[in-house]
Amino acid sequence: MGATGYTALELIKLLLRHPEVEIVALTTRKEDRPHVSSVHKQLTNRLDLTLDNLTPQQLAEKTDCVFGCLPHAASAPLVMQLLEAGIRVVDFSADYRLDDPVLYSNWYNVEHPDPERMPNVPYGLPELFSESIKEAQVVANPGCFPTGAILALAPLLVDNLVESDSIIVDSKTGVSGAGRNPKLGTHYPECNESIAAYSVGQHRHMPEIDFVLGKVTGKNVETIFTPHLVPMDRGILTTAYAKPKGMVNESELIERYKEFYRESPFVRVVDHLPATKDTMNTNYCDVTLRVVRGRIIVISSIDNLVKGASGAAVQNMNVMYGFDETTALI
Amino acid sequence: MGATGYTALELIKLLLRHPEVEIVALTTRKEDRPHVSSVHKQLTNRLDLTLDNLTPQQLAEKTDCVFGCLPHAASAPLVMQLLEAGIRVVDFSADYRLDDPVLYSNWYNVEHPDPERMPNVPYGLPELFSESIKEAQVVANPGCFPTGAILALAPLLVDNLVESDSIIVDSKTGVSGAGRNPKLGTHYPECNESIAAYSVGQHRHMPEIDFVLGKVTGKNVETIFTPHLVPMDRGILTTAYAKPKGMVNESELIERYKEFYRESPFVRVVDHLPATKDTMNTNYCDVTLRVVRGRIIVISSIDNLVKGASGAAVQNMNVMYGFDETTALI
Amino acid sequence: MGATGYTALELIKLLLRHPEVEIVALTTRKEDRPHVSSVHKQLTNRLDLTLDNLTPQQLAEKTDCVFGCLPHAASAPLVMQLLEAGIRVVDFSADYRLDDPVLYSNWYNVEHPDPERMPNVPYGLPELFSESIKEAQVVANPGCFPTGAILALAPLLVDNLVESDSIIVDSKTGVSGAGRNPKLGTHYPECNESIAAYSVGQHRHMPEIDFVLGKVTGKNVETIFTPHLVPMDRGILTTAYAKPKGMVNESELIERYKEFYRESPFVRVVDHLPATKDTMNTNYCDVTLRVVRGRIIVISSIDNLVKGASGAAVQNMNVMYGFDETTALI
Amino acid sequence: MGATGYTALELIKLLLRHPEVEIVALTTRKEDRPHVSSVHKQLTNRLDLTLDNLTPQQLAEKTDCVFGCLPHAASAPLVMQLLEAGIRVVDFSADYRLDDPVLYSNWYNVEHPDPERMPNVPYGLPELFSESIKEAQVVANPGCFPTGAILALAPLLVDNLVESDSIIVDSKTGVSGAGRNPKLGTHYPECNESIAAYSVGQHRHMPEIDFVLGKVTGKNVETIFTPHLVPMDRGILTTAYAKPKGMVNESELIERYKEFYRESPFVRVVDHLPATKDTMNTNYCDVTLRVVRGRIIVISSIDNLVKGASGAAVQNMNVMYGFDETTALI
Repeated sequence: MGATGYTALELIKLLLRHPEVEIVALTTRKEDRPHVSSVHKQLTNRLDLTLDNLTPQQLAEKTDCVFGCLPHAASAPLVMQLLEAGIRVVDFSADYRLDDPVLYSNWYNVEHPDPERMPNVPYGLPELFSESIKEAQVVANPGCFPTGAILALAPLLVDNLVESDSIIVDSKTGVSGAGRNPKLGTHYPECNESIAAYSVGQHRHMPEIDFVLGKVTGKNVETIFTPHLVPMDRGILTTAYAKPKGMVNESELIERYKEFYRESPFVRVVDHLPATKDTMNTNYCDVTLRVVRGRIIVISSIDNLVKGASGAAVQNMNVMYGFDETTALI
Repeated sequence: MGATGYTALELIKLLLRHPEVEIVALTTRKEDRPHVSSVHKQLTNRLDLTLDNLTPQQLAEKTDCVFGCLPHAASAPLVMQLLEAGIRVVDFSADYRLDDPVLYSNWYNVEHPDPERMPNVPYGLPELFSESIKEAQVVANPGCFPTGAILALAPLLVDNLVESDSIIVDSKTGVSGAGRNPKLGTHYPECNESIAAYSVGQHRHMPEIDFVLGKVTGKNVETIFTPHLVPMDRGILTTAYAKPKGMVNESELIERYKEFYRESPFVRVVDHLPATKDTMNTNYCDVTLRVVRGRIIVISSIDNLVKGASGAAVQNMNVMYGFDETTALI
Repeated sequence: MGATGYTALELIKLLLRHPEVEIVALTTRKEDRPHVSSVHKQLTNRLDLTLDNLTPQQLAEKTDCVFGCLPHAASAPLVMQLLEAGIRVVDFSADYRLDDPVLYSNWYNVEHPDPERMPNVPYGLPELFSESIKEAQVVANPGCFPTGAILALAPLLVDNLVESDSIIVDSKTGVSGAGRNPKLGTHYPECNESIAAYSVGQHRHMPEIDFVLGKVTGKNVETIFTPHLVPMDRGILTTAYAKPKGMVNESELIERYKEFYRESPFVRVVDHLPATKDTMNTNYCDVTLRVVRGRIIVISSIDNLVKGASGAAVQNMNVMYGFDETTALI
Repeated sequence: MGATGYTALELIKLLLRHPEVEIVALTTRKEDRPHVSSVHKQLTNRLDLTLDNLTPQQLAEKTDCVFGCLPHAASAPLVMQLLEAGIRVVDFSADYRLDDPVLYSNWYNVEHPDPERMPNVPYGLPELFSESIKEAQVVANPGCFPTGAILALAPLLVDNLVESDSIIVDSKTGVSGAGRNPKLGTHYPECNESIAAYSVGQHRHMPEIDFVLGKVTGKNVETIFTPHLVPMDRGILTTAYAKPKGMVNESELIERYKEFYRESPFVRVVDHLPATKDTMNTNYCDVTLRVVRGRIIVISSIDNLVKGASGAAVQNMNVMYGFDETTALI
C-alpha cells in the first residue's frame, strides 16, 4: 500500500529477490493506474503491475501479507480493516510504534483511531523484540533515526551503565529520508553542498527513541535529539553521547556489545569508526564505541532506506513467517 | 524585478560589490512583502530591503536601471513600460533574444507583445556585440547554454572554417540552471548521483544558438543541441563537434582563438582541458580546442549563474554605462 | 586476482549471492596478507578470507575459475599460466580485447606477451558474442566505456543504417571508473562540483570501441570518443551521434532496437531518456534513440562497475558454465 | 609561503580584491618554479607569478607582510626569521596558537623551536582579541574547527552560564578541510555519499578549543570534540551541547548573543537554524541557540576556507594595518 515512494521502491527491489514471496498488487490513492515502471523507471522489465486504488477488502482477496508504506494517520484505519480480514501487516507508518494514545496525539496532532491495539503491536526491531514479532499479526516497522539510535544505545541502558536522562543523539541523514515529495528544502541546489540541523527538539523520532529505550530497560529515558540533513542520497550516522555511572573501559564496552548482538546477524560491532558507505544498500547496522574524557560516544551507521525502513520490513516478515531472518537481505 | 530566484541572488551579491551601484528596490509578484534576508538567508545583514510588488512606474521613480529576472512572456510587457519611462533595462528573459516574432512564437508558444522592437535589441554578449550594447536602452541577456556554445563556436564560423549545418553541441549543466522552483526532476534524491540528457532536440536554447551564430556569421547555422543535467550546483561544460572544411591544425586554432578574444577580458583561451570548477563563481569562459580524426572539438566552461546569467548582466551594465567592463566581476 | 580495487569488491558482492559459486581465494601483490574486511570494510562479517600473494599454480589447486582484476600487461602473463593449468578465466584487463598485437602495442606501449591467442579470445559481451563465450576457456571482459558505446551503436551498424567513419561518442562517467588509487584528479575537492573532459582523442577505449564494432559489422568503424568525468560514484551515460545513410524514423528505430535485443535480458530498450540512476547497482543497459535534424542520437546508460565490469564478468561466467545468464544479477 | 594548497588559493583570490595589497611573491619548497596558474588553474590570467623556493631573507626584501600557509613545525622556524627581519606575519599553522610548549609537544609530537614567544602571540580571532592583534607583529590564525566552536561557545562561558567541563562539540566539515594532498580517505569514491566521524577524542583542534575558551573565560574548559567528514567541498557546521548552571531562556540567549557580537561584523546571530550554504564563500559565522530539555544547543556555520582560514587571515591583516576590518571580505 502506497507504492510511489522511496521505501516502496526499495521494498519491491528486495522482495523481487525473495524466494518465498510473490508481489501480487501495488496500491496508490491516485486514480490513473500508472504502470509501476513509469513511476519507478528502475523497475522497467522487472515487475509487470499497475498501481491501483484498491480497498483493504480487495487487497485481502489477493494476498496474505501487506506492507503499508503510508504516512501516519492515513495508515491505521486501513491496517485495522486488513487485520479484521485476517491479513498480516508490516506497517511502515508511526501509527503503532508508541503505546500511549496521548503521547501519540501530542506529537502527531491527531487522535489515534485504534488506541486499544497500540500496546499489543510489537516494535519491529528483531534485535530486541523477535519473540513478539514471531507471533504478531501486525508489526510496527521502526523509524529510521530510532533504528540507528536504539541499536547504538540499548546495551548501555540494559546494563544500566549510563545516566538515562541526558543522552545526546546527534544524527545525520541522507536526503531520501525526507521522502519523494519535492520541497524547497530538498531541492538540489538548496541542500547540495550544505549541512544543517533541522527540527531541533521537535522531531517526532525523539519520543519514539525515548519510548522504545524505556520499554527495553524499564527506565525513564530522555534524549536530546538533533537531526541533520547531509548532501547524500542515503545513510544515517548517529553519534550518541552518554554519561557513564561509573568507570568504563572502551575495549570492554566493545566486547560487551559484541556479546549483546551475538545472535543479531545484521548488527556488526566493529572496532573502526563506521562510515555510512560501509552499510549503504545493506541491512547492516555498524556500531562502535569510544570513551573520551569520561564520556561514552557510541557511533552507528545504517542505510535509512534498508535497515532504516524496507530491509527491516523484510527482516520482520522473515521472522513473522519463520523464514531465515537474512533471506533476500544479504 | 523578480528577486526570489537564483539569478537574482547572484546578481544582488555582485551588485553589492559594485562601487557605482546602489540597490534601491527588489520586486516580486507575491504580496506579503518578505524581507530579502528571509528569501535569501545568505544576504542576512547585507541588504536591508523588502521585496515589493511594484509597478514599472513605481520602479521608474526609484532607479535609472532595472534588471529583469522574470520568465519569458512575463517580462516583455513590463520592459515596454520601463523603456517608455526612460529606464534602461537588462532583461534576463528570452523575450528580446531572437529577432523574429514567428520563430519566437513557434518555440515559446505565445505571441510576442513587442515584435517591432525585437530586431533592435542587442544580444548581451559584449564579446561579440559591445558596440550596440554601449548605446542600447535595453539589452537581451543571453541564455546560459547559448553563452557557452556561442563563445566556443563563433571564431570557427566567423573564419568560415567549418560546415555550419551539422554542428553538435553536447552540453552539461549544474542543477541551478533549472531554477529555484522544486520539481521531481530536481529533487535531490532523483538527480543526485545521476546524469541524464533532457529536452533532446526540443530545448529553446537551440534556436537561440543558431540565431546568434547566424547573425554573427551571416550564414545559416544549424546545431544539434543536447543538454544534460549533472549532479552539481553550478557550471556548464559545452563539448562541440564541428566538421572542418579543409585541413586544420590544433595549435593554430588555439592561437587564432587567442587572437579573436584578445580584447575580451572574460574569455580565457587555454591549452588544457577546461573544468567547470575553474570558472565556478567567476565571470570567465575558458575555451580550448582539439582535433581528433579530422573533427574539431571545442570545449568551453562557464558558471551558468555568473557568465551564464548575472555576471553577464553586470558586464552588460558596465558596458552600457561606460564603467570598466570588469568592475565588480574580478 | 587483484582483490583490492573497486571491481573486485563489486565482484565479491555479486558472487556472494551466486548459488553455484564459492569464493575460495583472493590475491594481491602485497605481502602483508590483510583480511578482506580490512581492505573492504563493507565486507565485514561477510567473507572470511585473507588476501594472499598466490602464484597461478597455487590458485589452480584451489579453484576452477579465476576472475582477473589486474591492470593490462600485468594480467596476460598470469592468465597464460592459469590457462595452461586448465583453469577458466574471466580477464578484466584489456590484454585480450583487441586481436591485433600491433594495435595493442601502439595504444598500450608494451609488447603483447601472448599475441597468438589474441584473435581466439571472445570479447565478453554476451549480447553479441554469446556463442563463442559458451565454449571459451578465457573471456576478455569489456571496458566500461566500450560496453555503453557498443550496445548503443551495434544495431545501427549491423543494419548498415549510418555512416561508420564519423560517429561521435560523448561519454560521461562516475569517478569510480578511475580506480581506487588516490590521485589529484580524483581527490574529492578537485572533482566534486565539476565536470571536465579528459584524454580527448587519446583514450584507450577508443580503439576498443572501433575494433569491436568493426568485428560485429565487418566494416571499418571510426569513432570520435570524448570521455568526461562527472561528480558521482558510478554510472556511464553515452550520447552517440551518427549520420544516417537514408531516411530514418525515430519510433521505427526504437522498435528495431527492441527486436535486436529481444533475447538480451540486460538490455532494456526504453522510450524515455535514460538516467544513470535507473541502472545504478544493476547489470542493465538502458538505451533509447532520438532523431534531431536528420541526425540519430543514441543514448545508453550503465553502471560502470556492474554491466561495465563485474556484473558483465558474472554474466560471462554464467554463459561459460551454462548457468542461467541472469543468476545473481537480478 | 606555501602557495600550492587550498588555503593559499583562497587567500590569493581574496587579496586580488584588496585595494591596499599587492601580491609580490609566492613560495613553495618544490624546485621547478611552476607558474601559479599551472598550480591553480582558476588563477589563469589573474596573477602572473611563479612559485619560488625563497628564503625568509629573500622574502623580506620583497614585502612587508607574509602569510604563512605551511604545516605546523615547518612554519615556526621560518616565522622566527621573518620576524627578525622586521616582517609582519599571519601564520596559518598551529605553531603559535597554544601558549604552553608542553601541551604543544604532547599533541604535535615535536619540540617547539620558539617557546618563549608562544604566550605573546595573539590568537587571530578579532571577535575576541582585536586589541592585541592590532599591535602584533605575528598573529596565529585560528584552526577551522576552533573558529566555529569558539564563536559558538564564548558568550555562554564568558557569562558563566554553563558547566565548563563537559561541553560536547559535534562538528561536521567539508572535505577541503583535509587539504590538497590526495589520500584514500579523501579519494572521491571513498568519501562521496558517506559521512563518518574521524579522530574521535584525538583531534589536535580539541586542546586548541579548550585553551582559547579557557583564556577568554579564566576557567578550565574541557570539551568532547567529535569531527565528521561530510561529502561537500566546504563548510563547517558545529553543534555544541552545554549544560546550563541555572534556568535559561532561548530568546534571551539569542538576544545576549546579538549583544555580545554587536561590534563583530562577521558574526551573524540568527533566529533560524544555520546551513553551511548560507556562509559558503563568505567570511561570516552564523550562530543560533536552542534549549531542548534543559540543555543548550548552539549551532554555528562557517566556510572552513574563508572564516576558518584565509578570510580570517585577511581580517587579521586588516586589523593589524588599521584597514577597515571588512575590506575585501564582503
